Amino acid sequence: MNNYQNILLAIDFSDYDHYVAQRAKHLSDQFNAHLHIIHVLDNIPMPDTPYGTVIPLNEDSSYDLLEAEKNKLIQISDQLDIAPTRRWMVWGEPQQEITQLAVQEQIDLIVVGSHGRHGLAVLLGSTAKEVLYHAECDVLTVHLRDN
Amino acid sequence: MNNYQNILLAIDFSDYDHYVAQRAKHLSDQFNAHLHIIHVLDNIPMPDTPYGTVIPLNEDSSYDLLEAEKNKLIQISDQLDIAPTRRWMVWGEPQQEITQLAVQEQIDLIVVGSHGRHGLAVLLGSTAKEVLYHAECDVLTVHLRDN
Repeated sequence: MNNYQNILLAIDFSDYDHYVAQRAKHLSDQFNAHLHIIHVLDNIPMPDTPYGTVIPLNEDSSYDLLEAEKNKLIQISDQLDIAPTRRWMVWGEPQQEITQLAVQEQIDLIVVGSHGRHGLAVLLGSTAKEVLYHAECDVLTVHLRDN
Repeated sequence: MNNYQNILLAIDFSDYDHYVAQRAKHLSDQFNAHLHIIHVLDNIPMPDTPYGTVIPLNEDSSYDLLEAEKNKLIQISDQLDIAPTRRWMVWGEPQQEITQLAVQEQIDLIVVGSHGRHGLAVLLGSTAKEVLYHAECDVLTVHLRDN
């Protein structure tokens, strides 16, 4: 049985990100895997681009909120030693974008928190069955406590 | 961040068990963790015991079907080098019994397949949200293909 080779960490900048990120980092170190990171923008206004378009992190934006999100992603990615080519910020529905990116990047393990906007609570919503059931790779749900 | 120390493999004797079992074994070796195994009896008649009672594997039974299930569990557990004290066969609802045992045995990672009676397809049923959302530990869903 092969080790995981490409691990995708899905974060939503909630208070729980740190713990989920540490788990993903720990696993990628343990397996000597490439660590990828995705943040899906589902709560800020979309600029004049096609829905779901990937936003290059090196592109200027006039939206302060977008800049703030970019900076957060860069900061977390730097802390985790994630290569710039493996950082993704995408507009769209979290479950759809996470699953699509996983296929595109040949991810074999997705790591999500049990809470938060990208977490299991959301994934278990109306489209959850389709998403997790049809995900093309393993999914680790990191348990997070509310307190 | 600590390694996982107690990993619980949930199997249902489906055609997919082998792959899920190998993943759980691989992880437990990698993390030097104790590997536990549970099979929940949800598809055979229940003998005259309280619902949900744990069935000692060394107890004689007059039920051929139960014997067959016991033997399967013993065979798989032997192959995975799982200590007899970490093998569990329980009557009840898979999601409920798996979650309860995880708490009882201080499990920090549950490994389930994405298909099968104990798999995600079932866990994502009516009680799924309660189960996975309130699970007291991480959950790894191993992706299985239908073909």
